[in-house]
Order: sequence, then structure tokens, then C-alpha cells
Amino acid sequence: MQCDVFLVGTGQTRFGELFDRSTRDVMEEAIGNAIENSGLTSLDIDMVVVANMLAEQTNNQAHLGSLASQMLPHHPPALRVEAACGSGAVALHTATALLESKRAETVLVVGVEKMTDASTEDVSTALMGAADSELDQPSGLTFPGIFGLIAQRYMHEYGLTREQLSLVSALHHRNGMRNPFAQFRIEVTPEAVSQSSPVADPLRLLDCSPISDGAAACILSTLHRSPLRLAASQIATDTLSIAQRATLTSFSASKEAMERALREAEIDRDEIKALETHDCFSIAALINLEDLGFAEPGEGIRLYEALYKGRATSLMINRSGGLKACGHPVAATGVKQLCDIGKQLISEKKQWGIAHNFGGACASCGIHLLENLDA
Amino acid sequence: MQCDVFLVGTGQTRFGELFDRSTRDVMEEAIGNAIENSGLTSLDIDMVVVANMLAEQTNNQAHLGSLASQMLPHHPPALRVEAACGSGAVALHTATALLESKRAETVLVVGVEKMTDASTEDVSTALMGAADSELDQPSGLTFPGIFGLIAQRYMHEYGLTREQLSLVSALHHRNGMRNPFAQFRIEVTPEAVSQSSPVADPLRLLDCSPISDGAAACILSTLHRSPLRLAASQIATDTLSIAQRATLTSFSASKEAMERALREAEIDRDEIKALETHDCFSIAALINLEDLGFAEPGEGIRLYEALYKGRATSLMINRSGGLKACGHPVAATGVKQLCDIGKQLISEKKQWGIAHNFGGACASCGIHLLENLDA
Repeated sequence: MQCDVFLVGTGQTRFGELFDRSTRDVMEEAIGNAIENSGLTSLDIDMVVVANMLAEQTNNQAHLGSLASQMLPHHPPALRVEAACGSGAVALHTATALLESKRAETVLVVGVEKMTDASTEDVSTALMGAADSELDQPSGLTFPGIFGLIAQRYMHEYGLTREQLSLVSALHHRNGMRNPFAQFRIEVTPEAVSQSSPVADPLRLLDCSPISDGAAACILSTLHRSPLRLAASQIATDTLSIAQRATLTSFSASKEAMERALREAEIDRDEIKALETHDCFSIAALINLEDLGFAEPGEGIRLYEALYKGRATSLMINRSGGLKACGHPVAATGVKQLCDIGKQLISEKKQWGIAHNFGGACASCGIHLLENLDA
Repeated sequence: MQCDVFLVGTGQTRFGELFDRSTRDVMEEAIGNAIENSGLTSLDIDMVVVANMLAEQTNNQAHLGSLASQMLPHHPPALRVEAACGSGAVALHTATALLESKRAETVLVVGVEKMTDASTEDVSTALMGAADSELDQPSGLTFPGIFGLIAQRYMHEYGLTREQLSLVSALHHRNGMRNPFAQFRIEVTPEAVSQSSPVADPLRLLDCSPISDGAAACILSTLHRSPLRLAASQIATDTLSIAQRATLTSFSASKEAMERALREAEIDRDEIKALETHDCFSIAALINLEDLGFAEPGEGIRLYEALYKGRATSLMINRSGGLKACGHPVAATGVKQLCDIGKQLISEKKQWGIAHNFGGACASCGIHLLENLDA
């Protein structure tokens, strides 16, 4: 980092099927909560970065930078960034660069998605925009299909069983029961996951994060301070088309972003005690643990087995409930992950936490490392 | 500027109805041209910023950062930014911040739009996403309608005549005849503009920039040098809804971005000799000249009257042909404007030029000031 950047405020809406709320309603609520949480006023915000993927298609609303800016009395300069489901992390990265460039001292980042305004079919089609429209879409794949293929290959390579995989969603749901902002606050047993409706073999309904509405906001500042220091912000990119990948069971963008983030923060991986990772599908959580270096290839499930049995591990994983239990309003997720890591570091008195967010089949990845200076 | 940023390479496709080319085709061509023009190799590019507004709707392709990165052998980190028709300038601004933050030393910016793949009706609907979906869209307005209202009010306030307004498009078309990349390279008389089909009274067909395909790319660097130095990069934001504006005949975001750009570059307005301004509709060009301070309110037409009669003025305006003659593949326009200003400063041996790009009814505005160090 070129200078100290602090996470001075966070806020979010509940994620879920918010049928009675519009895109601007949820943005306003998240922004208001973040400003209130920060103790600053609206006028302290120099710039706004909005993360959004789908509003053009679900709400015929582009130009969300201006829409967010309009909510603040002084209409600060604003822009929207997009990297599919990784939009949130990429927006945080853009905000970090704006702060380091000295073009702003305090930046509001808001991630928003209002998915339930469109039919499931339309949302599924729109989400496929995150994949390659010439190389992958014409095969008829949807994202459950892509991650179904990935899970098939992973099981073939590493011998992961259907019963083991079900522990991932079961743990995320158990964690989500404590999160007042989560879409689903219900206990789900591994058996229920295994027996839920098939979606894209071997993935079943309860392996998949849902269609959700919601917004989350972070305020980052070089001028105002808090105990939460952003120690690294890195993004990495892989081929958009999965047909051009060397492997389906590991995402190189995660590995690359993680290596650079650890170098930037100048810490070792094992100092990290809290992780929010991108479990758009259960199989992704296992691959992520391995790509981030928290488990050997094929061994990610060991951490879930331990955590589900209540055994102590040195790493908290998706304490929020992850995408599975919290819901996944796509561009809001990366921003909400950083909000959650901040809360976890404070409440658990831990020093280091990491938010790991990706887009598509990890064609874009963003990693943010947060330090609790009070720990 | 926190450090010297140079425009080291530019490239574009021809703008027009490129029915046989895809989004990736035009991106690849513009990127290839810019890299070739720079004398660098693909591997010199550290990051990619893509400007795009409509590909999700016209091509079901989001995630264009990854798509562009995929075209380079080393897949550098990439993101997409969007601020409607002002996406290009906002992408240049984002790239500038990434360079100033030292997160990159050489950034490729590519603006792309492929509009003719969709029906005119669908494109018009998608473009209305640049306006406020709750406050402006429900009135049934399209952008020709919004700028028709603006022209009505401008004529009422300042007494501009239909015949005078026609000089704007006539001059742009005359300029465009010399531009090999322009969509229309035909002479259009003021009489032809006045007599073209009514679109939104008082605006006629030849007051309106067309639906276009195309891409443009710039390479900005702090490591590699060129005679073209970026002296200022500023963005500003206004309310998305025109219903919330104090006036229809002036755009506050242009004024604000211009004031800050002049301060940043530490120059006087009258040192600027080349302007590319956002003439999405003819009336906008007049308002822009006034907001940028090159003419008093209501007097913008005087510059067009002088230029159309071939009289010498101290300012070249839309020598490329502007959006009217070049075409307006929306997110490509802001990037292409900077390409053109660079070429004009070199060929005319002028020191200072300015690219002025906006989105919607100037709800987002970006201004870039370029200095020719050899002049």
C-alpha cells in the first residue's frame, strides 16, 4: 500500500427476496448504515464507487455511479465497476487506487443487486454474461452446469464423495443462523443437502447460492482512522472461457491474487484467522481453500469436516454463512465480505482476516487483507 | 497529477455498422493497433481497464475486463467501468488513478460498443438505462426526447434558431470527411440538417449522433514516455434525473470537471487549442462550449458560425467529426476522443488539447487535458 487505508464504516441491508424494495432503496439503506457506522457525515465522502452486475438487465438501470452520488447532498464524483460476481472486490480495489493516488481521501464503495425483479430464467441468462459468450455460452452451459462439471472433475481427481461435499453447505447454514442479515437462517443437515433436488449433477439445490437482493457498503479512508487497516488489495484475472484453462479443479487467479496480497501485507498465510470465501457453489469453497493455500489440493474438505464436528481449527471459514446462507446479490457479495471480516476481527479479537471474492468461474478474483490494529 | 503519465499509444477501429464483426473482434483490433502504435509489446501492459455500457444487453456479455485480458498472453488484472456514454473518460480516469497509486506502470484502456447487433428499439431502451429508471424513464422519454426538451428550452432562453443549430452538424460532417475512421464521410449542408426527418422537436435526424459499432484504445504509462503528457484527469457527477436539475441549458458536471482540470494542469483556458466535445446531439455541443468556458451562455453558436464560414478561431472544435460524423459507440467515444486530441496536437503542433466526454444528460462527465511536450 502506498499509504494507510482504513475501513472506517460498514453497512448492509438484509440479503433476501426483497420484493418491496427497489435498487435505490437497498442502496440508500446500505449507504446510510455505513455512514452512520463510520461516525462521519455524507459530506466527508469524496468519491463513490458502485459495484453492480445486473441492474441494466433486471432494472433497465445503468449509470449507477450517478444514481448513488445523487443520494448524497454534494453529488461527489462516482463511477460503477463490474467484474461479474467479483464486482465487489474490484470496486474495493478501484477505491483503494483512488485513495492511494490522492484523488480522494474518503471513498464510499457500495455493491448492489436486485435480482428478484426478473424471472429466474432471465436472471440465469443474464448471469451467463459472466461467461464467454462465444466460447462457453453456445454450449448451453449455465453456471450450475459449469460448476457441476468442475465438481465432477474434482470428485474424479480427488475421490471426494457426495456425502463429504454436503458438509460445506451444512456448515455455512449453521454459521448463517447467527447472522441477522442472512437470507436463510435455518439449520440444514448434510443429509438434506445430499437429498435436495438435482440441479447439475453432482450438484444439488442446496449446493448452490441463491438468487438474492441486497446491498452492502464500505467506507475507506486515508484521512479518518479506525482500528481496521486495509493491508492488501489485489485483483487477478484468468481466461474468461473455461475451455482455455489448464485445469478445472484450481483457479489460477485466486492463487495469483493471494500470493501478491501476502507479499503486499508482508505476512505469512498462517497468521490469517478469518476467511470469507466465495462459495457460489459448495465445490468452489473447497477449491478456494486449496488455491489460497489453506489446504493441500484435494484436502479442502478436511477443514470442513473438522469445523462441522466442532473441532478447533486455526481458521474461521465463512462465519457469516457465506454466499450459501447469506444469499448472493452478486456485486454486493464482495463488499459484504469485507464488512463481515471487519466485524469478525473485532468480535473475535483476531489480527488478520481475508475476503476472497471472484467472478464467473474465477475469471476475475479480488482479495482484501484486513488487519485489526487493536488485536 | 501525482506523477507524469504519458499517452504512449492509441488505436481504434473504424466506427460504423460493423455487421460482420463481434465485440471481441473490434476490441482485438483496437488493442492491437494501440500496442503497435506504442512500440511496446503486450507483455508491457500491467493492467487493463475496459469501458463498456451495453454489451450485457446487446451481446449477453458482461465481464469484459476478463475478456480483454484474455487477448493478452499474460492475462493482466482487468476491470470494466461504466458511466453510460461517459464510460470512456471514466475508464481513463480509473487508469490514471491506478498509475498514480503505483499499482501499475502501464495501463491499457479500451472502450468498446457493439450496438448494431440489437434492434433499434432494443438499443433505445438499453440506452435509456443511462437515465433515471424511476424518475425519468416512466415519463416515456428517450434521449432524443430529453435533448429535444433541452433544445426547446435553450431556444426559448437564448433565441437560437433552427437554421443556426444546423451549422453544428454541418461543421462536424465537414470535419469528418477527413477522418478515415468516421462512420459518415459525407458533406451535409445546414439546409439538409434543417430538412431532415423530425425526431424530437426541434431536433431532427441529422442533429443526432448515430447507433454505431467500434472500439478505441489508449495506452497510458508512467514508465514509458512519449511527447504526449496527460496533464489532468477529472470526473464529476450530477443528479441522474433531469427532474432534479436547476437548469436544462447548462450541465454543472462539465463546469465542475473543467474547473478542476484547469487547476490540476495549472493552465488558463485560452491556452487550449484543440477540443473534442461530446455532441451526442447538436444542442449539446453549444451547451458544452459554454459550460467549458469557451463561450458565454447563449453564445456557443458564434464559434460554429465562424468555423463554418472558415474564419480563423483560436480553438479547433471536433476536428475528428465529433460524435455526429464519427459515430457514437457509446463507451468507445471517450477513449477515441483522447486518441484524436493526441493526433491533433502532434499534427497541428499545438501544446494543449482537451477531451470532454459525458454520460446521459451529463450526469457523469470526464475531462482529460493533454500536453504536447514537443510543441
